[in-house]
Parts: sequence; C-alpha cells; structure tokens
Amino acid sequence: MISFENDYSEGASEKILQRLIETNMEQLSGYGNDRYCESAKEKIRKACGCPEAEIYFLSGGTQTNRIVISSMLQPYEGVIAAQTGHVSSHEAGAIESSGHKVLTLPQHDGKIEPKELADYLNDFYGDGNHEHMVFPGMVYISHPTEYGTLYTKGELAELADICLEYHIPLYLDGARLGYALAADTDVTLKDVADYCDVFYIGGTKVGALCGEAVVFTKENVPAHFLTRIKQQGGLLAKGRLLGIQFDTLFTENLYLELGRHAMKCAEKLKAIFKEKKYPFYIDSPTNQIFVVLENEKMKELEKKVKFSFWEKADDTHTVVRFAVSWATQEEMIDELQELL
Amino acid sequence: MISFENDYSEGASEKILQRLIETNMEQLSGYGNDRYCESAKEKIRKACGCPEAEIYFLSGGTQTNRIVISSMLQPYEGVIAAQTGHVSSHEAGAIESSGHKVLTLPQHDGKIEPKELADYLNDFYGDGNHEHMVFPGMVYISHPTEYGTLYTKGELAELADICLEYHIPLYLDGARLGYALAADTDVTLKDVADYCDVFYIGGTKVGALCGEAVVFTKENVPAHFLTRIKQQGGLLAKGRLLGIQFDTLFTENLYLELGRHAMKCAEKLKAIFKEKKYPFYIDSPTNQIFVVLENEKMKELEKKVKFSFWEKADDTHTVVRFAVSWATQEEMIDELQELL
Amino acid sequence: MISFENDYSEGASEKILQRLIETNMEQLSGYGNDRYCESAKEKIRKACGCPEAEIYFLSGGTQTNRIVISSMLQPYEGVIAAQTGHVSSHEAGAIESSGHKVLTLPQHDGKIEPKELADYLNDFYGDGNHEHMVFPGMVYISHPTEYGTLYTKGELAELADICLEYHIPLYLDGARLGYALAADTDVTLKDVADYCDVFYIGGTKVGALCGEAVVFTKENVPAHFLTRIKQQGGLLAKGRLLGIQFDTLFTENLYLELGRHAMKCAEKLKAIFKEKKYPFYIDSPTNQIFVVLENEKMKELEKKVKFSFWEKADDTHTVVRFAVSWATQEEMIDELQELL
Amino acid sequence: MISFENDYSEGASEKILQRLIETNMEQLSGYGNDRYCESAKEKIRKACGCPEAEIYFLSGGTQTNRIVISSMLQPYEGVIAAQTGHVSSHEAGAIESSGHKVLTLPQHDGKIEPKELADYLNDFYGDGNHEHMVFPGMVYISHPTEYGTLYTKGELAELADICLEYHIPLYLDGARLGYALAADTDVTLKDVADYCDVFYIGGTKVGALCGEAVVFTKENVPAHFLTRIKQQGGLLAKGRLLGIQFDTLFTENLYLELGRHAMKCAEKLKAIFKEKKYPFYIDSPTNQIFVVLENEKMKELEKKVKFSFWEKADDTHTVVRFAVSWATQEEMIDELQELL
Repeated sequence: MISFENDYSEGASEKILQRLIETNMEQLSGYGNDRYCESAKEKIRKACGCPEAEIYFLSGGTQTNRIVISSMLQPYEGVIAAQTGHVSSHEAGAIESSGHKVLTLPQHDGKIEPKELADYLNDFYGDGNHEHMVFPGMVYISHPTEYGTLYTKGELAELADICLEYHIPLYLDGARLGYALAADTDVTLKDVADYCDVFYIGGTKVGALCGEAVVFTKENVPAHFLTRIKQQGGLLAKGRLLGIQFDTLFTENLYLELGRHAMKCAEKLKAIFKEKKYPFYIDSPTNQIFVVLENEKMKELEKKVKFSFWEKADDTHTVVRFAVSWATQEEMIDELQELL
Repeated sequence: MISFENDYSEGASEKILQRLIETNMEQLSGYGNDRYCESAKEKIRKACGCPEAEIYFLSGGTQTNRIVISSMLQPYEGVIAAQTGHVSSHEAGAIESSGHKVLTLPQHDGKIEPKELADYLNDFYGDGNHEHMVFPGMVYISHPTEYGTLYTKGELAELADICLEYHIPLYLDGARLGYALAADTDVTLKDVADYCDVFYIGGTKVGALCGEAVVFTKENVPAHFLTRIKQQGGLLAKGRLLGIQFDTLFTENLYLELGRHAMKCAEKLKAIFKEKKYPFYIDSPTNQIFVVLENEKMKELEKKVKFSFWEKADDTHTVVRFAVSWATQEEMIDELQELL
Repeated sequence: MISFENDYSEGASEKILQRLIETNMEQLSGYGNDRYCESAKEKIRKACGCPEAEIYFLSGGTQTNRIVISSMLQPYEGVIAAQTGHVSSHEAGAIESSGHKVLTLPQHDGKIEPKELADYLNDFYGDGNHEHMVFPGMVYISHPTEYGTLYTKGELAELADICLEYHIPLYLDGARLGYALAADTDVTLKDVADYCDVFYIGGTKVGALCGEAVVFTKENVPAHFLTRIKQQGGLLAKGRLLGIQFDTLFTENLYLELGRHAMKCAEKLKAIFKEKKYPFYIDSPTNQIFVVLENEKMKELEKKVKFSFWEKADDTHTVVRFAVSWATQEEMIDELQELL
Repeated sequence: MISFENDYSEGASEKILQRLIETNMEQLSGYGNDRYCESAKEKIRKACGCPEAEIYFLSGGTQTNRIVISSMLQPYEGVIAAQTGHVSSHEAGAIESSGHKVLTLPQHDGKIEPKELADYLNDFYGDGNHEHMVFPGMVYISHPTEYGTLYTKGELAELADICLEYHIPLYLDGARLGYALAADTDVTLKDVADYCDVFYIGGTKVGALCGEAVVFTKENVPAHFLTRIKQQGGLLAKGRLLGIQFDTLFTENLYLELGRHAMKCAEKLKAIFKEKKYPFYIDSPTNQIFVVLENEKMKELEKKVKFSFWEKADDTHTVVRFAVSWATQEEMIDELQELL
C-alpha cells in the first residue's frame, strides 16, 4: 500500500547511506568532536551566510525544542508559541517537563501575528501583577508551520524587531525547513539566519535517518551547551552519525535538491486535486496538502492508500492531509491519481 | 594513528549498514510501530528467554538511564548506585536534572556489595527521620562496570533478593553487555532477564550506530512509557533506525559474535601486556584493559596510539585504559605490540 | 487611607492571636505532629462530614496548588483549568515548574462548563495522536473563582461525574472558601467534600495569618505526602502555627462566622453601588465586587481609598475590584459611601 | 514531660507575639511590600554592616535552601556540601527535586575543609571529562553545622578565597545562626556578611514562629527573585508575618539576646554533664550537646525527658543530643540535673 501519511516513512537519501558506508571504519573521536561534524558545521555556516554561527547536532525535533528552549530560558520565563505550535500541542509536555510554560497566542493558518505578539508583550509588562506571572522569555515559530504555511520575509523581520525590542530570542523550528526553502517564498536560509537568534535545520523529515542541526546565529550559544545536551540525554557517543549526514546534506546542495523534489511532487499532486475538484482546506505552499474528502470517498481511499486524518469538516466530510517528501516517487502520485 | 581510546570509535557492523540499505525505501510507520521493531523485540524476547518482556528502543546510554530511572521512581525516591556508577559521576547530572537523587554506596572494583546494600536499606528504614530523607526507590548497577568488572550470578541473585525484599526494582545498565556476555562468566542473558526488573542491551558500544534496547522483564513497564520517552526527547520519528539495527544484532547471534571478537582481541592484548611485564591496575575481564605505564613510556606511546588517561598512580606512573571492541582489527594489536 | 484592595490586608482573627499566646510556651512536637494539628483535623473532618478525610496544613495557596497537583499527577499528565484559573495565570508558572502543563478550557464568569470539560476529554482520547500529547490527569476549579463566582451543587455534581468517568480527581481551590460557604448558595462544606477528591480550605484570606488546610476525601492521599511537602519546601518545623490557627477557625463556627461578616459587608457595599448607579461588571455573589468606574472618578477615588485595577472597560471607563473580608469594619464602608 | 528534643518546640518570643497583636488590624500591602518588612531589612542591613545587602524573607530552612540554591545555580551546576550537610541528607531531596546535584565533600565535625574544597575544584577542572560531569556552582556550609560546630574566621576567609578564585558563591545556612553569634567565637554577623555571597539568618529555631531572612551581600540577588519565590510556593500573601517578626528580632538586639540565653543554658547543662562524668561525643560550642549514654540510663531517662537519638556508639552505649534554645527555662535544666 502506498503512503502519503507523513514525511518520515522512508530511510535516508541514498547519498547519506553511501557516505556512512565509506566512512564506517574510520576511527573518530566521540561526542561530535570529529572531522565530519566540523566539515558539516562549516558548510552550514556558509549556506547560512553566517560565519560566526555556532552549530550543534541533535537527534530529533522534540529533543531539540526541549533542549534549546530550556537552555535559553530563565526559570521564571516561558516561551511564546501559536496555540497549534508543535511545542504547545504535540510534544507530550516536553517543555513543561523541563519547567517552563508555553504561553500561547492565537494561530492564523498556523502562524502568529506580529501585532498580536507585540500586544501580548506590551500587556504583560503593563500588568501590575506581572511579577506573579510567567515572563515571556522567547518566541517560538515554525517554518513551515503545522499547516505547512510560511512566514514572509516581512513577517520575520517584524517578529525579529519585536523580539529585539524586548530582548528575547526568536527561535525558528525548521523541522521541515528544506521544504520551506524550496517553496515559492521570499525567505532564504540566509534570511532565517539573519532574523532568528537560533533555529534548527530539520534532517529527519528532509532526507536524514535522524538529526537536526541547531544554529545559534548571534554568538549566543548557552554556556556549557554540550553539558546541557548530555544532561538531557541528547548527546550521541557516535556524533559522527549526525555529522556525516549533515555534511552530505550540505554538499552540492543536496538539502535544497531534496526539498525541490518534494515541491515538484506537491505541485503535481495539488494539480490533480484541483483538476478533480477536491476542495482544499487551506492554501499550503509546502509539502503538506490538506483537502476535504467526502466520508464515503475517504473510506474507499483508505483501503489503498495511507494519509492522515486531520479533523472533521462536517457530518459528511473530513479534512485529511497528504504529505509528500524527498522520497516520494512519481509513480505513487500516478497511482493515487487513479484512485481519486 | 590507531586508537584504543574507546569502544565507539567506528561506525557500525557491516551487516547493520547492509540492512539499512536493503530496507531504505520501504514505507514504514513512525515512532517504532514498524515491522522491524516488532521483529527485533521478538528476537530479544527469545534471546532473553523471557516471552513476556516488553522492549523499547532508545538512542544512547545517558538518555536511557534518565528515562528509565525517572519513569520508575516516585518523586520522593532516589536511585542507589556505586559512587563510580555512570549515573553518579559521568552523566552531567541527568538523573538529578529529572528530579531524583543518586544515593551512593562504596564501589569495590566498580561494583556494589550486596551486604552494604542490605545495610543501607535496613539503616534507612531504621532511621526515625527517614521521612525527611530521600527514599531508596531503585538499585542501579552496570555490567560490565566502569572498570570492566562483572557481577557473578550469585551476586546478582543476592542483589535481586534484597530488592525484592524492599519492593524496589533492580536495574542493570548494559551499555557494554555484549562484552559481558562473551566474557568468562557464569552470567547469561537469561540470568540478567531473570534477576533484573529492567535492563538495557547496549547497541552503541557493541556494533550499532546508536541505540539501546530497554527490556522490562516483569510486566512492569511504566504507564504510558512512550509518552514519557517523547516528553524527554527520546522518541525518534524514524524508529526503524533502531529496530533494524537491533533486528540485525539479534539475527544469527551477531550481538554475541561481536562481543566474542572483542574478547579475543582483549585476550591477545592482555597477553602482550603480561609478556611485556606491564602491571595491570585491575583484573578486568571484559573489553577494557587498565595498565600502569611509566610516564615516559606513556608520552612516547601517545604519539602513535590513542588510549585513555584514567588516573595518576604515583609521581612517575599513570593508570591508562586500552579499549578493544567489535571493530578492533588484529593488525592494530600487532602494531601496538610493536610500540610497547 | 482605607483599603478594599484585597482580603489579606490585615493580620488574623483576634481569637487566633489569643490562642497563639495561650499555647506559646507549650513544648510540642514538630512538623505537624502535635495535639493542635490533631484537634484541628478532627474538627475539620466533622465540619466536612467526612470522617475518613486526611488533612494536611500548608502555608499558602500557590504552595498548596503546586504540591497537591504535582503529587497527584503522573509525569505524563497535566491539570485542566479555566484560562483564568489561578494556577493558569497568576502563580508564576509554579505548576509548569513542577513539570506539568496546565491544560486550559474557556472560562465562563471564571468557571469551566461541564459540557466543555466532557468534550475536551472525549476529544483527547478520540485523537489518534494523543500519546504525543499531555494526558489530562486532574481537573482544577476554584470556588469562589477569580471573579468571585460560585459553582452550583448541580455543576459540582456534573464535574464530579465526568471526573469519575475518566478516573481523574476533581480538585477545588478554596482560597476563599469561607466566603463561598457564607454566600447565598446551595453548596455546603459537606457537598464540597462529597464531590471533590481533594480540596483546600483557605485560611490566609479568611482570618488566618497564613495557612491552608488540604483535605483528601477519598482515602487518596499520595504516598509519603509529608516527604513530598518537605521536598518542595512546604513543611514548617513549627507545624503548631498552622494547627492552632485551624483549630481555632473550626471552633464554634469561627470560620463560617468570619465568612458571614464579609458577606454582610459585601451586601452593604453592593447596595451602595446599586443605589449610586455604578454598573456592575459581573454579578459576583461573594466578597469581591467588580464595578465599572469612569476614569475621572477612579482617579479621584484613588487618592482616598485603595482598590484593584481589573481591566480597561473602554476609553473612558475602567473595571475595578473592591474586596471586603472577615476584617472589614463597617466604618470603612461608610467612609467609602461618602466618597462614591 | 520536659523536652530537650530540639530548638523548635515552643512558639515565639513574647515580644514577637506582642508586636503581632499591636499591628494586627493595620492594613498593609501584601507579598512583603509593607513597612515592617522594609524596617526589618534596614535593621538587618545595619546589623550586618552591609548597607547594600538585599534581603528576602522566607518561611523555613528547606524552602530557603531550595529557592536560594536553585536560583543561583545554572542547570549544569551542582552545589558542594559536606556529606552531613542538611541539603545533602535531611531535606528529602529538595535540591535534586529542583534539578541540581549535591556534590559531597567529607565532613570533619560537620564542616568541610578548605584544602579539600580547593582540591575538589582543582581536580574537577583538571579532569578531561569534566564536560560530562556536574559543574561545581556553589559552596554550601552551615554555621553552626549539624553537629553544632562553628567555622573560624580564618576558615571562612579561606573558603571565601577559594570561591572567589572559581567564581562561585559561598552560601551559609544560618538556621541556628543566633546561637553561633552568641557562642565563644571570632565570627561576627559582619564577618558572615563579608565572607559569604549569600546567607540566611534563621528565625524558626531562634525565637520566631517561622521565617528565615535571606541576605544577598554582593548586589547579586538573582533576577526576578520574587517571581522565583512565588513559583516555588514560598511567597506569603501576608508578608507582614515575616516582616514583623524580623523587625522585632532585630530591635534592641533581641536576636542576639535570645542566642545568649541559649548559650547560658548550654553552658549550665554542659557543666552538669561534665560534673556527672557523662562523656561528650563531640565538643560542640553551640546549643546542641551530644553525649554518650549507657543504654540502661537512656531508657530510664526517656521516661521523663525528651531528647534525640543520634547514633549507636557501641552495643551498650548510645549517642544522644540535648538541645537548648531561646525558650529553655532554667527549671528544666534543674529538673534534668535531678534525673541524670
């Protein structure tokens, strides 16, 4: 059965596996102190146009969010996020487990609005009781969001300005950043590095077996960050596993290429839905496509293809998500076309 | 330069890489709900002689210790360990960071003594103030220990009896369990499963790229353990990465074979040290060899071979550690022999 | 300057001070193991009509909420509360600091609606991804709420039924319970004990120097609760300080009497506002009165009397709160009447 | 039955109760923002000879240790203490519960030795693996110690020098500081303020109903300390309760006077033990007296007087503790003399 269930159904880009084999018996230092980690960091710095960036490799998205956020917040601070933000709703309370509140703003197609952020911060400090409340200590956004939507360069700039004004970092969760960069957008990787104080480049969902690259852009890496990673259980003895993967992803534009492949698949699939008159739930410019299916049709389809339930639309219709990825094969889309 | 610095200098057993390639484009469910995880679990259950065992895969040792220990303790409980136990001294405070004290017992060649454990527990409950103290809620041992030493079957039985009496679980850290099982010992994997309430089978140091298999042997897996793993950042989206590796390690005895290879190397290396009259610091029966070097000799050696500083012996001598592993090549030992 | 700023502006009921003096030089055991704590517990059990109740004394509301909630939740669980609930908004992240998320429901005059609670729980378990989310592990309500409003007996019964169905405790924050019990309501202390699994009787805001009495009603006190209190810094060496106060509060109905005095003051003050045509912001039946003032009038008043800013109503009006209490003197109200 | 069980058996100094009554109906702001807190702080600053000191009032010793230590440590840091330190052994894991390890040094009559502290710190930074370990972030001492012993001025100076060298604060737990200051010692309150970065003046055990005054001496109060106190449940709504007590304790030398009374009682009691040839377990210069009793004698005494079991001396003898305090009445000592 073909699957459009998510963007982590397959293993890794063939090139990554190839490099793992080639380097396998080299004896390397542990914990990320190896030449592949170094090389990967250097390539990422270049790709970001940020020579002073400090980079760490972690294993997965929730781990990264937990470690980055808890390391950058003071105990009396929380992180601001959209109500639908991953940290807010789908990380099993990882942030709270580290001692910090997620302070939620309304979501607009998965995004937060600069104006609402500014108001929140202004209201907080205007509240005479704010010393009895959780201080806003960071802003978390994801790009793409949970709905596959993207911030514009203008929006990022506005958010960054507000954060600067309140002296709090802007953190971008780039679990699917590769798809954002390959989409029709005015936001480049360099922009991300410019506007954000810290962000991560997602590997797991964009061609790696596992791994996310955290990029601190403003000489702002928390003191003893390696020790913090270790303490929270995020330090791999064989740091090479992450270094080699990111070194490969950032060699000859592989990361962007993988993103572009997915975007091509997304365009093709969207065209099919459009042609077949399936209504879209949201205009999502990246690799996640949200459509409304009649329940009958949904049940029929489910026998032959995997996709994700999103939410009930009405009594006879359901919103579902089809995800394409770096690994999607054109024949799968053709097969799906037959079934629709 | 050849390295005997540790047992995680190389990548993974070739067979593991082979399987990763073969399965790479299969579309599998995430978070460990795939057929390879299932198959690996079934094989481990068999190898343990424990059909009711419940098994989870995690990425590394500190992560595993943190998640297992914090999930099995109540907030008012701590974990008992040797002063030199990994959780006590070399995990950057991971256990404390999760809210729990490590209660230390003296170490004897890296091990705790059943008698001292029994006394500790007896004294605790005999202390009229014990409600103002941290309750002992678990016993942590490692096998092999930090010094490469092993518990005997009799010692494990004694520790298990004491834990049973006090209704606290016995937890065995098997980061290097493969080397323990292949050593000259009366403790089998089945014994470990019999005596311990929970233990983990180390992959990272015994042939895997990453990964540890946690085995709950007494139908005692903590409620919603998957959610707890997610919360602490230990859940990989591509759970297959761990499932495929452990499925391979437990196919055709690969795990034991890798251990035996290391033991053969260790025997060979020990014979060389013996022959060359280097004094041993401790009689370590597994893959870590501790010898005392003259400082002059040490400095000379360091130019050509990597090994670990352990501690100062006296003003002119140093204790150092040579580690062999599943990946050690016979020629490396020959080369080292030349240099000694 | 007279103050209606809050209900903790004065010290304690004269009778409490009297008892502190009378018992001062008695040598008593520490940590709550004294005869006054015992006597207070027994009187509270009787007042609650709950002979099996287990009772602990703590120092303040946030401390109580933090200790009770964190002791009754599993690490993977959060507590459900109204968005305006004290734990959600005005405890500086105490609950999150203990590792748990506050899961918010909409507030209706400060209360949560049984129907919305039931839907939330039903939706949670219906969500295929719920293992990646925070489990609802407890329901928190306050009575009176932040707006001084009260649950009806019928509402409490409904909430209790839902909690029972999902096997989660219902917890009632009674920081101002004395005022609730003395108000025009069908909810008695016995009802609170019947419907709630745990609740606290507020002392600080109802006549004590400090102190809250936590009542576990269903033989459900968390294991080693004393140790948990100690661990979180809530155990007073001189437990007598709390025992003597609650013993006094529950002697000859003092607690209820103090509440009734405040209710009488509240009625008098409300009548004055009504007569003077000040619009009420909310119909609040307990000791907090919310009225809308013209900004001019507000500024004038502020020179002579203290009250609390609540929120802006519109550009020329403000919602403010006047609080009366066990300590309010009739002359203060007369004086305020002059100024209005 | 008379009791020498501890120094918190009675209520409070009569003068404190008197002041509570006199101020009872004054309407004061909450959370420590009242004139009595201000006045108490000013008097303490003077008594410490430290005009820039910042002072906060908390309710008890464990609460104070937990809040101060967790607020001054970074997440990757632990606190160094003697193995017998209160934070290490008798606070139910409060420090670990806040996420931090207690790093223990050997105790010498309850004290740590400057030389051993210096070695520990030197060894830590000399260890190539220290990034995988808990960083020493603070030094905790108590004065008097658990054994009633005192640091000399010279020892405090040495400890302070070492802390300065490593840029970590020296924290002194003064739960019984009043008895230390009144003892035969070269350490004054001003010395404590000079050498320590933070310390607390114990009220609970020296004449108050409850309360400890935390003194930050080097303009080093952690950011938003009030919010941290609130978050950990340590903020009393009626801060006046603590302010009035400390204001009284630091009026006309009451604090010192209470200490001196206890010292006089201690001298008298020690003389009796000496005369009656009871061997002392340790030469304890403050209000705790440790003697060795024959088990027969102990059992006989226990019928008429309360004291504390400390530890078994041998099969026929036991070490016990007699504590005197600000509240000890001369007749009690006379009565005890009869019984010895």
